[in-house]
Amino acid sequence: SLLAAIVPACSAVLTAWREVGGLVVHTRESHQPDLSDCPPAKRLRGNPSLRIGDAGPMGRILVTGEPGNQIIPALAPQPGEIEIDEPGKGAFYATPLHEMLQYNGITHLLFMGVTTEVCVQTSMREANDRGYDCLLLEDCTESYFPAFKTAAVEMLRAQGAIVGWTAPSATLLAALATSPEAAQLQGRKAIADKVCAVYTTPTSPPRSVTATAFKSRADEVYGQLKRDIVSFSLV
Amino acid sequence: SLLAAIVPACSAVLTAWREVGGLVVHTRESHQPDLSDCPPAKRLRGNPSLRIGDAGPMGRILVTGEPGNQIIPALAPQPGEIEIDEPGKGAFYATPLHEMLQYNGITHLLFMGVTTEVCVQTSMREANDRGYDCLLLEDCTESYFPAFKTAAVEMLRAQGAIVGWTAPSATLLAALATSPEAAQLQGRKAIADKVCAVYTTPTSPPRSVTATAFKSRADEVYGQLKRDIVSFSLV
Repeated sequence: SLLAAIVPACSAVLTAWREVGGLVVHTRESHQPDLSDCPPAKRLRGNPSLRIGDAGPMGRILVTGEPGNQIIPALAPQPGEIEIDEPGKGAFYATPLHEMLQYNGITHLLFMGVTTEVCVQTSMREANDRGYDCLLLEDCTESYFPAFKTAAVEMLRAQGAIVGWTAPSATLLAALATSPEAAQLQGRKAIADKVCAVYTTPTSPPRSVTATAFKSRADEVYGQLKRDIVSFSLV
Repeated sequence: SLLAAIVPACSAVLTAWREVGGLVVHTRESHQPDLSDCPPAKRLRGNPSLRIGDAGPMGRILVTGEPGNQIIPALAPQPGEIEIDEPGKGAFYATPLHEMLQYNGITHLLFMGVTTEVCVQTSMREANDRGYDCLLLEDCTESYFPAFKTAAVEMLRAQGAIVGWTAPSATLLAALATSPEAAQLQGRKAIADKVCAVYTTPTSPPRSVTATAFKSRADEVYGQLKRDIVSFSLV
């Protein structure tokens, strides 16, 4: 599918980020089994064939812990990585994400995931208001509607990166192109400096690259809603 | 200017809403004079000629209480209306807006203001995650970039109003077309029912109208950033 096509690019970034010791955060839109954190306005919206909490082919829709609400194997969390279950489209509202990032001293975020104009954009706007420098990896995000992806990317980086920066993942990978041994020798600070230098280097105007956490999601890869949002940080 | 052109439409809605006794909320993006609520990532972003807190032609840029940070006279708050000073692009983060709306029993919001793809969209996404039914009045919002307005409106109402509904203000005004005396007789509940009926009536597919608070902003009408965001509720 359109969305599944970004998984290899997301996986490559995830691997490179883990090798340099970057923090990874995975987020899933999901609700408690009793739906106590699902506003009626959200559950009753529109006329879907299956509503939040209904039984679908991979378990109850958008409910925490159900088979269909897991992160896909190619992007699965590893021990020690942060996992966030978010009741909204944004990963910050009603979650401890901001506090956990603050605890870890995170100032920069990299975003990957789907869909660009819904969850990714919402979370990036929340992060921007909270003072994080945000970078969206252009080929690591996708929408069901390609025109929405294009428009979202453009409006996020408009007016001098009013919400954040965008760049192709190759630019980030080039900045990270160092062996795990070299990373060990250089230390995380040196890697962070290299990544931050990428942020400030225009790739194609008005783009420039920025920062250090990462968001990815693979949606409906198994025919049902699923997501994987990873946030990274080097700082 | 492009943005000032929406002021008459915003003013007409504001007048009609006040006549039926709707709650009005005005919001301004602004920071404390010591900038303690302005993240460095926001103040240092890009290379503007004037940064937040700098002295501009109408006082310090985006600082609470400065002449340039007031709501324009045509849309000025009246006694008893809520005013919110927000440190982000969204009106909910780090403000008491959600608590104040909850206290007033508000379930539906109407949005007006500028710019569509930045503050209006960010606030509408925050409101949606918090469980409000949201409606954006299409001719009461504007952007510096018309293509961004179009794209934002489309992505907000896509997928069955994933963030909310949109409608021309004429549709809302028609639902409110009742004299103050009649409103007094009918009571606010009857008016609310009429407005909610508008939400569920498609105006032009896939549009339908939804709900009850209101956001407006007039920007740079006096050559400097200013805003006026009013939120309404009948419920």
